[in-house]
Amino acid sequence: MPSVEHGTGTSMPTPWTAPDILEKLDRLATCTEKAGEISRLFLTPEHAQALSLVRGWMQEAGLETRLDASATLAGTRPSDRPGMPRLLIGSHIDTVRGAGRYDGCLGVIMAIALAARLRDAELPYALEIRAFGDEEGVRFPVTLTGAHATAGTFDPAWLGAADDDGITLGEAFESFGTDPGNLARCKPADVFAYLEIHIEQGPVLEAANLPVGVVTAINGAARWELTITGRAGHAGTVPMAQRRDALVAASAMVLAARRIAIERPDVVATIGRLVVSPGAANVIPGECILTLDLRAPEDAARSAAAREILAAFQHIAAENRTSLSAQLLHDAPATACDPRLQSRLAASIAAAGLPALHLPSGAGHDAMAIASLCPIGMLFVRCAGGISHHPDESVTVDDVATALDVMLHTLQNLDPTAFLSP
Amino acid sequence: MPSVEHGTGTSMPTPWTAPDILEKLDRLATCTEKAGEISRLFLTPEHAQALSLVRGWMQEAGLETRLDASATLAGTRPSDRPGMPRLLIGSHIDTVRGAGRYDGCLGVIMAIALAARLRDAELPYALEIRAFGDEEGVRFPVTLTGAHATAGTFDPAWLGAADDDGITLGEAFESFGTDPGNLARCKPADVFAYLEIHIEQGPVLEAANLPVGVVTAINGAARWELTITGRAGHAGTVPMAQRRDALVAASAMVLAARRIAIERPDVVATIGRLVVSPGAANVIPGECILTLDLRAPEDAARSAAAREILAAFQHIAAENRTSLSAQLLHDAPATACDPRLQSRLAASIAAAGLPALHLPSGAGHDAMAIASLCPIGMLFVRCAGGISHHPDESVTVDDVATALDVMLHTLQNLDPTAFLSP
Repeated sequence: MPSVEHGTGTSMPTPWTAPDILEKLDRLATCTEKAGEISRLFLTPEHAQALSLVRGWMQEAGLETRLDASATLAGTRPSDRPGMPRLLIGSHIDTVRGAGRYDGCLGVIMAIALAARLRDAELPYALEIRAFGDEEGVRFPVTLTGAHATAGTFDPAWLGAADDDGITLGEAFESFGTDPGNLARCKPADVFAYLEIHIEQGPVLEAANLPVGVVTAINGAARWELTITGRAGHAGTVPMAQRRDALVAASAMVLAARRIAIERPDVVATIGRLVVSPGAANVIPGECILTLDLRAPEDAARSAAAREILAAFQHIAAENRTSLSAQLLHDAPATACDPRLQSRLAASIAAAGLPALHLPSGAGHDAMAIASLCPIGMLFVRCAGGISHHPDESVTVDDVATALDVMLHTLQNLDPTAFLSP
Repeated sequence: MPSVEHGTGTSMPTPWTAPDILEKLDRLATCTEKAGEISRLFLTPEHAQALSLVRGWMQEAGLETRLDASATLAGTRPSDRPGMPRLLIGSHIDTVRGAGRYDGCLGVIMAIALAARLRDAELPYALEIRAFGDEEGVRFPVTLTGAHATAGTFDPAWLGAADDDGITLGEAFESFGTDPGNLARCKPADVFAYLEIHIEQGPVLEAANLPVGVVTAINGAARWELTITGRAGHAGTVPMAQRRDALVAASAMVLAARRIAIERPDVVATIGRLVVSPGAANVIPGECILTLDLRAPEDAARSAAAREILAAFQHIAAENRTSLSAQLLHDAPATACDPRLQSRLAASIAAAGLPALHLPSGAGHDAMAIASLCPIGMLFVRCAGGISHHPDESVTVDDVATALDVMLHTLQNLDPTAFLSP
């Protein structure tokens, strides 16, 4: 296979099939701060290296490229004219440390493949691919900055956010060669919809034996830190009936949270952290500190579950003669996917001869920030074992081919007027 | 109050009442390796300092003193003759680090007080007080060495056990001035019974509003380390029904252990240590490592509880699609207190106008090692809040006075022939 000359768009065209997409993802994975793993943080040399590859592929797909002030790379069709209703398709090219090669990047490369495959198609809308640089929020204590800039909701205060070396986001933009003064100009005009393809990062499609699924919403999420205070004591000398065992209370809470979440469709509750003090084999636990993470595609369902869980926790604490304090750490509402885009994606899945499974997204995505700009839609691609943020992250070439077919069908049948009516 | 001249036995006699006992315990507490706390380890300068005080008090009580090869200080009445049936009364004068002032020491000083108060009494048995130096097992990885030497069960292999500085027990004995070659000579002849007074180190007497209680047995104890392996996953993306949450399984186990222990009188089960991996708020726990500590005064009851708990654990592990491995860390049988000594102590409590509460000991004591030598009996004294191994360890002067009266009554009414019949 001949090597691809980047930045010319004139070399031997790649076929932009599923194997070609996976091969490009393998090459993108070599842009890393540390050999042997994939770690590509925002506004780093690795980010620049990835942008260079992606820019080349965009150009090869016939797109005109432009790096905006938020370091988002945009690729647009030369045939598109200002004033045409515009479809955005995007995802991110930054990674967590020790990442897999598909989270974010699959959506970017597939979007370019779609543009390439539709290069000569007449479309009733302008098409713009966006490769965001900051979805994972690993380097700076802010996140989704690229998507927020695209949506016009970038908060200038974020420029002061500093990384572990004390470098602010503003300084990093300047070192990277982008001008934070132009951040307000990142928002594209005339956008009628945003689509994003992403690996599921969960096991639902695999369990359903389906290659793709339609995202209903990006779950809202709340997190609490809870402290249970009982009374430590000698494991040998304090009778069971006289104990105020903080871990017994915590255990009942873990099971209550699970029971309440199971009773409600699509609500997930997780106690992921539990620290027992003093934590010695021969001492009755006097204190437990635990986290409760609660997510749901509908905020009302999540709020109802939260009320029920916290009430159960208070009851359990009292029952075990322990005290409970709960601190809400964060609370983010759900982002609904547009029903028309869901229907459109579902129809394309059906056209591929597959049942259209609708499922919520438990993880966050760039689409969350774009939702204030326009209707959003997301297609999930099955990933092995639901594993993500890990080198074992994996998709199959067949699933990518199916996703490509579904998206081609969607783009070929997307009517912007359905979104432009008042 | 005139100061007491140690080692003469001829100075102004102390009254050996409860306040006097507490005053001596306060003085003993000043023998510590670190000012501001009580830390008195085996065969240290602080141990020697404490032995000097105790020796003086024994002599003041009219006892002849002798430090044996295990660094146990023995005090005997000059009127006692070889061949007389011998009653031992003892406890220990070593402490944990950051100890209270009553664990062990109360039993030693009260024993001396008993000898002093009965100095001129005719007794149908010889009386010997023993102050053991190594009950807590803090310095060396062996424990109860003094009591084992008294019982004739000191294992010479223990002499090779080294402390954190690499000093062996044998070397420490020699530095301390005792001859390990004489360890086999520590066992006294003609012993018919051993009595020990000790703080309860638990909350049972306090809850029953009683100053003293009769110990039925020193609980047997077993300890396991258990590893639950589930599957880690994203807290947002894995539906409840597809989870293999190790903490959910662990929580059910904590509650099952509690339920099973509560159903059986005097069985106590504790999960004191539980470590959750990976332990992040947004990750479903993939592994939990926990300890199970199980104690009971009767080995059969403890074994039955262990079987039921471990079977429940296996069932819970399977039910949660997790795997369980269990490693037994130690398993020590229970030591029963002699029924005749229990009756004698109970009768003395009744004579003091109090109900005689019988209760097991959840903690270990020197009496465990002495049990192979002769029948053992123990009187527990109430301690505030059940707190022990802590500076807040506390007893009241009234409770000590009651314990003293009960023990005086016991010693005055103890018939060695009841123990000498075949």
